[in-house]
Amino acid sequence: MSATPLLTLLTDFGLQDTYVAQMHGVIAGIAPTARVIDLAHGIQPQNRLHAAVALVDAVEAFPDGTVHVVVVDPGVGSSRRAIAAEIGRWRFVGPDNGVFTDVLDRWPLHRAVTLTNPQFHRPGVSRTFHGRDVFSPVAAHWVNGVSIDEFGPPVADPLVQLDWPRPTLSTGHITGQILMVDRFGNLITNITADLLTASQAAEVTAGSQRIGAIVGCYAERPGQALALIGSSGRLEIAVGNGSAAETLQLGVGAKVSVRW
Amino acid sequence: MSATPLLTLLTDFGLQDTYVAQMHGVIAGIAPTARVIDLAHGIQPQNRLHAAVALVDAVEAFPDGTVHVVVVDPGVGSSRRAIAAEIGRWRFVGPDNGVFTDVLDRWPLHRAVTLTNPQFHRPGVSRTFHGRDVFSPVAAHWVNGVSIDEFGPPVADPLVQLDWPRPTLSTGHITGQILMVDRFGNLITNITADLLTASQAAEVTAGSQRIGAIVGCYAERPGQALALIGSSGRLEIAVGNGSAAETLQLGVGAKVSVRW
Amino acid sequence: MSATPLLTLLTDFGLQDTYVAQMHGVIAGIAPTARVIDLAHGIQPQNRLHAAVALVDAVEAFPDGTVHVVVVDPGVGSSRRAIAAEIGRWRFVGPDNGVFTDVLDRWPLHRAVTLTNPQFHRPGVSRTFHGRDVFSPVAAHWVNGVSIDEFGPPVADPLVQLDWPRPTLSTGHITGQILMVDRFGNLITNITADLLTASQAAEVTAGSQRIGAIVGCYAERPGQALALIGSSGRLEIAVGNGSAAETLQLGVGAKVSVRW
Repeated sequence: MSATPLLTLLTDFGLQDTYVAQMHGVIAGIAPTARVIDLAHGIQPQNRLHAAVALVDAVEAFPDGTVHVVVVDPGVGSSRRAIAAEIGRWRFVGPDNGVFTDVLDRWPLHRAVTLTNPQFHRPGVSRTFHGRDVFSPVAAHWVNGVSIDEFGPPVADPLVQLDWPRPTLSTGHITGQILMVDRFGNLITNITADLLTASQAAEVTAGSQRIGAIVGCYAERPGQALALIGSSGRLEIAVGNGSAAETLQLGVGAKVSVRW
Repeated sequence: MSATPLLTLLTDFGLQDTYVAQMHGVIAGIAPTARVIDLAHGIQPQNRLHAAVALVDAVEAFPDGTVHVVVVDPGVGSSRRAIAAEIGRWRFVGPDNGVFTDVLDRWPLHRAVTLTNPQFHRPGVSRTFHGRDVFSPVAAHWVNGVSIDEFGPPVADPLVQLDWPRPTLSTGHITGQILMVDRFGNLITNITADLLTASQAAEVTAGSQRIGAIVGCYAERPGQALALIGSSGRLEIAVGNGSAAETLQLGVGAKVSVRW
Repeated sequence: MSATPLLTLLTDFGLQDTYVAQMHGVIAGIAPTARVIDLAHGIQPQNRLHAAVALVDAVEAFPDGTVHVVVVDPGVGSSRRAIAAEIGRWRFVGPDNGVFTDVLDRWPLHRAVTLTNPQFHRPGVSRTFHGRDVFSPVAAHWVNGVSIDEFGPPVADPLVQLDWPRPTLSTGHITGQILMVDRFGNLITNITADLLTASQAAEVTAGSQRIGAIVGCYAERPGQALALIGSSGRLEIAVGNGSAAETLQLGVGAKVSVRW
C-alpha cells in the first residue's frame, strides 16, 4: 500500500452547489498537502449502479494506494454501514450500499472496517452529509498515515453487492446491454474485451440495428454507427463525429449482441 | 489568522468557458504552492443573493484563514468598490455589492480595505474581468503573506448588504421561504435550526402542501416529501430518492412555514 | 522556458464522465507534485475551432513554461500526428489537427516534435483515448524535466492550421463574426482591439441590429445591448445584466461590423 497522499472524489452532488467543495475544505484542513482529484460528480442522483460502473472504469488510471471516496448515498443517516476497504491496489471509502460492486467483482478485497470511531469524524456529524462529516475526514486521515484499524472494527460479513447486469454467453454469441451513455453519446456496454477473443470476425447489433464488425477507432467511419473497444476495455457503440445515442435512439438498458 | 495557503473561488462563470481557469492561472503565477478549491461556479448569472447563500453555507467546512474569493460582479468596471475583508475566522475578497451579506450577518467584521493599490493587480487591468485582474492577484498575494493594509485604505462606512429575506417569527409559528434548490431538487429554506428548538413536535407546510413533522434523514420516507435539518443547518424540504422541486412544483421564493 | 511544474487540460470531454479524472490520475502518477488546472472541458464535441479560440484567449493568464494539453481529437487512433510544441512562452501537447491554429497565428513556433517514443506513453495505449495514454504522460514527463527531444523526432513540415474566420478590413469599416457565446450569453467576436484604434467613435452593428458606440463596462447600459472590448481583447456584444444571445437572437457565425 503506497503512501501517496492522493484522494479522489466520486459523487452524485453535481457542481452547481458547494457540497463537493465542502468535502475539499474538510480534507484540506486535515491533510493540507494531499492531492485531491474529482473523479466525477455527475453520477445520476442516488444511482449506485452508475457510480459502480464509473468507479471501476476509472481506478486503473490512478497510482497504487490512491484513496477513492464514493458518495452516492441515499441511505445516509439510516442504518447502512459506512466503510473503508482495501480492494485490489487501491483504497476505498464510502457507504456499504453497492457502489463498490464491480470493483469487488474484479479485484480481491483485502480488508474492510466499519467507520464507527468518532475520533476521525467531523465534530457534530450531520445526518444528511456523511460525505463531508465522515467519509472525507476518514479519507484524509488515511492518506495522512492513520491505520485502517483505527477507523473501526473489521467487517465480518460480505459487503453489499448490487444485482449487476451481466452479459449472457452462448456458442458464438454474447448478449449484453448498455450501461452508460457518455458525453459524446457513445453507448458503453457491459461486454468486456476479454469476452471477445474472436472479435475481428464479430457482427454487432444494438437494439434492432445492425452495426457491423468491430473497428479500431472513431475516425474509421465518420458519420456512421460503429462498434469498437473503448478506453476502459468495454464494447462501445459510437458514431464517428456524432452521437450514437441520438442517431440510434438507444440508451441505458438497451440490448447489444455480438455474433461470430 | 492562519497562514494556510488555501483559497477558494465562488463565481457565476460556469465551467464551459475558461474564465475560472484564467483566475487559477493568475493565482498559480503568484502563489505557486497555494491550494485553490472551486467553491462553486454555477451561481445564477449576476445573482448576488444566490452567491451570498452559497458562501455562508460553505465557509465552515474550511480551515481558519482560508481566503474566499467571490466574483459575482455585474457592476465590474463601474464605481462599485473592490474589497478585502476579515470576517469571522476567514478572509474574503470580492466586490462590495452584497455578496458578503449573510457572512456579515453571522460573523463579526474585523476589518476591510478597498483594493486601490495597483501594485497587487495584474498589469493592464481590464474593465470587465476583475476576477482575473484584481481579486485573484490580491488573494494570491494575501495567502503569500502580504498584509491586508498593503492592498488599500481601510473601508470606513458599512459594507453593502442586500435586503435579505428573513423568516418571521410569532408564537408557535415561523414563516420563511425557499432560498435555493440544489441538484437533488431539495428545497433549502431561510429557516435555520436555531429557530426550531421545539422542532420534534413541529408541523411543516411548503407552499400549500402539508409536509408533516421534521425527520432525521432522507431514507426515512422514500418517495415521500419530508422536512429535515440539512447539512448547513437549514430547514430543507426533500423527497426521499426523488426531487422535491419536481414533486411539489416549488422553487425559490415559495413560502415554507413551521407550527408547533 | 520555466521549470514551473504547471499543466492545464482543455478537452471536449465534459465533466459528467471520468475521462478528465483519468488524465489527472495518470499525471499524478508520473508528476505527483505538478499542479494541474482544468482550462475547460465544455468544448463542443469534436469542435477544433472552438478549442483553438478558447485556448488562445486563456494562455496569457498562465506563467511562462506552462504545459497546455489540448484533447479535442476526433481523429484519435487514425493517422493524425500527436505533437509536443513550444509556441510563444508556453508549451503545448495534443493532436496536430488545428487546435493550435490561433496560438500559432499569434506567437512564434520555436519547435515541435511528433510523439512517437513509446517510453513516455502509458503501457498498452488504447486507440480511442490518447488524452490519457499519450498526451497526459508526455505532458507529465515534460514538466518533470524530460527534454522535448526525447518524445520523438522534430516535425519538419508545417503544423495543421484550420481555415480561420478572419475579419475583413476596409477604410473606416471592419466586418467580422461571432466566434463564441459564453455562459452569460455574451457574443465574442473575431474583431480584436488592435484593429480598433479609432474605437471611441465607432458604430457597431450585430446581425442587422444597431448596437451603438463601444462602451467601457457591462454596467453602463443595464438591460440594453452594448459593445465593449472583453477581457481577452476581443470586441464583444453583451446585454448588461442579461444575455445578448437571447435578446438579439444571435449565435456563432453571425456577422458583426464596426464603422467609424
